[in-house]
Amino acid sequence: MPAKRDYISNSVIRRLPRYYRFLGQLQKEGTLKISSAELSARMKLTASQIRQDLNCFGGFGQQGYGYNVAVLRNEIGSIIGVEKKAGAILIGAGNLGRAITTYFDFPRYGCELIGVFDVNPKLAKAKVSGLPVMHMKKLAEFCKKHQPSIAVLCIPQENAGKVCEELVECGVKAFWNFSHYDINLHFDDIIAENVHMGDSLLTLVYNVNNVRK
Amino acid sequence: MPAKRDYISNSVIRRLPRYYRFLGQLQKEGTLKISSAELSARMKLTASQIRQDLNCFGGFGQQGYGYNVAVLRNEIGSIIGVEKKAGAILIGAGNLGRAITTYFDFPRYGCELIGVFDVNPKLAKAKVSGLPVMHMKKLAEFCKKHQPSIAVLCIPQENAGKVCEELVECGVKAFWNFSHYDINLHFDDIIAENVHMGDSLLTLVYNVNNVRK
Repeated sequence: MPAKRDYISNSVIRRLPRYYRFLGQLQKEGTLKISSAELSARMKLTASQIRQDLNCFGGFGQQGYGYNVAVLRNEIGSIIGVEKKAGAILIGAGNLGRAITTYFDFPRYGCELIGVFDVNPKLAKAKVSGLPVMHMKKLAEFCKKHQPSIAVLCIPQENAGKVCEELVECGVKAFWNFSHYDINLHFDDIIAENVHMGDSLLTLVYNVNNVRK
Repeated sequence: MPAKRDYISNSVIRRLPRYYRFLGQLQKEGTLKISSAELSARMKLTASQIRQDLNCFGGFGQQGYGYNVAVLRNEIGSIIGVEKKAGAILIGAGNLGRAITTYFDFPRYGCELIGVFDVNPKLAKAKVSGLPVMHMKKLAEFCKKHQPSIAVLCIPQENAGKVCEELVECGVKAFWNFSHYDINLHFDDIIAENVHMGDSLLTLVYNVNNVRK
């Protein structure tokens, strides 16, 4: 088996979770092996694109056999680092924050939720996903002790700038950002995935109103 | 004022919600006008990109004056069709579905939530965002009467294919898709915005594990 490449391009990285997801589905369906042609038909990527991508991951198919689904999925999972369980904290225990942490099986996605924070004193005795809601003034102490890697940001835009500053000061460098705040515009040297749900819905609405005619 | 262009490119469409959002922030802050240079610094787009984009929308700045924030925002809102309030139905009243409808002020984003559906008979007497949860077997009748444009899809991947077929048969052509189902791979001639939250989190986790070293 040839060595894995050290450098994986950004566009391949963007496709990693999708391969991981599709291979998981195949595993669920009991598929043991799959050819690049079959995977190509299923994912609507060209077979050559798939072969190129998968060459980066080191989980190669055998001529006339195809890819071993479980091996390839494990390989991709280990490149992503799914088994490492990065520590994540939820910032903002409102509806959205509670929903995301309740809905999401964090360990399945390579994280572990280790803390929940909110500024609302009314939530002082509440629990979210089995964790007590802590006041934001306990953030620095908590981060010093537990060094979370990821903050799941579910707070209003108005407060987001100040809160991000605080988080960055506490050593948090990765943000799963659900606030309507463009964090990348204000902070360098951080990792962010922005889920701008409002922008997504407005794009859909534009298309409904303009494309269907 | 020059005429609006009939054709707006896909990449400009993708930026529309962001302009709309930024201009909304400026309005909240009491800003009446803004130059393309100021907007450029704020949005991290080049001033020439902004001028080009905004030329498509017909809301032009005046030399030496800048853009009228309210006029431009209204113009973009009307291009998106925010005031039209497209009818939307929620499919799947689980944690995520409930959270999205509770968290989201649909009218603000050009939609109105008019129906909530689930297959779970336990939810028969539940309400979500003030609407009674209907059983999926009532879908066809409801759609015939109310003709919703948009389905907000919050169901497990396993059922998504069958449910999408049903929705398409009922005349729904636009999907705000939160299920882990690649709807575009299976249906042509539909409008979809996919919020693949799991893929987003896995991308973040990859970057946490691989980029920070």
